[in-house]
Amino acid sequence: MEFWYTEQHTPDVRLSIRVNRQLYSRQSEFQRIDVFESPEFGRFLTLDGYMMLTEKDEFIYHEMITHVPMCVHPEAENILVIGGGDGGTVRELLRYPSIRHIDLVEIDEMVVDVCREYLPSTASCLSDGRVHIHYEDGLRFVRKPIDTYDLIIVDSTDPFGPGEGLFTKEFYGNCFKALKEDGIMINQHESPFYEQDAYAMQRMHQRIVHSFPFSRVYQVHIPTYPSGHWLFGFSSKNRRPVEGVDFARWKSLGIKTRYYNTQLHAAAFALPNYVEEILEDVEPQH
Amino acid sequence: MEFWYTEQHTPDVRLSIRVNRQLYSRQSEFQRIDVFESPEFGRFLTLDGYMMLTEKDEFIYHEMITHVPMCVHPEAENILVIGGGDGGTVRELLRYPSIRHIDLVEIDEMVVDVCREYLPSTASCLSDGRVHIHYEDGLRFVRKPIDTYDLIIVDSTDPFGPGEGLFTKEFYGNCFKALKEDGIMINQHESPFYEQDAYAMQRMHQRIVHSFPFSRVYQVHIPTYPSGHWLFGFSSKNRRPVEGVDFARWKSLGIKTRYYNTQLHAAAFALPNYVEEILEDVEPQH
Repeated sequence: MEFWYTEQHTPDVRLSIRVNRQLYSRQSEFQRIDVFESPEFGRFLTLDGYMMLTEKDEFIYHEMITHVPMCVHPEAENILVIGGGDGGTVRELLRYPSIRHIDLVEIDEMVVDVCREYLPSTASCLSDGRVHIHYEDGLRFVRKPIDTYDLIIVDSTDPFGPGEGLFTKEFYGNCFKALKEDGIMINQHESPFYEQDAYAMQRMHQRIVHSFPFSRVYQVHIPTYPSGHWLFGFSSKNRRPVEGVDFARWKSLGIKTRYYNTQLHAAAFALPNYVEEILEDVEPQH
Repeated sequence: MEFWYTEQHTPDVRLSIRVNRQLYSRQSEFQRIDVFESPEFGRFLTLDGYMMLTEKDEFIYHEMITHVPMCVHPEAENILVIGGGDGGTVRELLRYPSIRHIDLVEIDEMVVDVCREYLPSTASCLSDGRVHIHYEDGLRFVRKPIDTYDLIIVDSTDPFGPGEGLFTKEFYGNCFKALKEDGIMINQHESPFYEQDAYAMQRMHQRIVHSFPFSRVYQVHIPTYPSGHWLFGFSSKNRRPVEGVDFARWKSLGIKTRYYNTQLHAAAFALPNYVEEILEDVEPQH
């Protein structure tokens, strides 16, 4: 028997993954949630059919969304994670003893429940005492806090469906307000390669630079996302992601990682010309 | 009508590309050669069914295999390209007026003929007077020259089929001999992500470090290759790929690129921990 999961990366490109079994499939209030087991990637989670994470390569995404800002801002204590109900980002954050409080705002409780049952390697950390889960819309949650967080990680789905509000000017403006003076916002920033993704990433950058005085993009290799070339955004009121960063301090923490290291941290901010051009087109100074 | 080209990236992963038309299909003495036209990637060339290049993303591969060594060694005049019958590597080399002579050694004349007809954006440069095409086995060709080339670019297919000899200790040893004292060898170095590719890349590295005193790997995003995470090898008798390189000199040449830039050049040598570990496992000092 041939049993395959297929994602359309564009109307004209498909990635297919052989499946052993479908472990879970249910429609929540917000989206369709599936968990599959595969020979190549282990278990993987999809939302409305889109790949969210696989056991094989989730370390890349979660290490790079977390350790980059934590290396830049090692005193960060109070963190807000928006989305990320799978727990992978929280798992990496909890490796820092200095972190005291994590608010995780996930719109869909069923995602957390499913991940707790089927993806314990990312979700089991969610029962840690420092983690406070709020089942509500991130767009709404972030309207209230002012000058509260050291770090906000927007670990969102794509800019359509239930995560759509996390790509608006209102949302980024409220993240800015919710951050302390030396705070950082990191966001899942889509991909530069296929036209539709590049358009989404450009529009997102345009909205972020409207709210934040400093914003740069960094790149990673995520094989199970469209094109494998994925971006994160680094935005702040004043901190810079490489210049002046105390890399030796991060190394002294002794956190063992499989993708992240401090050389790669700095290197990830060097972008191909064609990506720089997409970003510069919407930056105010141009 | 649905018309798709599918490549098995592993037995359990497939990338499929929608095709408008198959423009060419023929069995040469060495391999099956196909050219397709697609809405997403424009035209693309496959050999024995494996993706070689697409019009949309070939600039990434060809810029990164060429401008990295040419920036390190701007006096390079005499170049050997092994494989690369599509002409993309030669096209990038010809942008340097300082280059006087390029030997292109392609085993399969039919690849060159097909690319000249169907992929003129890479192959039309092959009629330049500085380019000397040799239709023979690269393994054999490289036995003769001694202390001859400033740069050897091994623009090979995968380590099976007609390109197999280009992954042997004998071949790398002869490349070493064929290079001048300050020469550089660059080679297509497979991918670290899927197990079979990672094994091939590790074995290749082991053989190269056996022949060259200095060898480092650098990474690029190539969306149409398995996992999108691709590597090149930089090997030399004494030159280093970043330290001491005169990046300002390269910038002064005014060569317009879409992927390559000098920041990215340096950054590409920063590798994820898991890739470093695969390489270190076979390096003699470990």
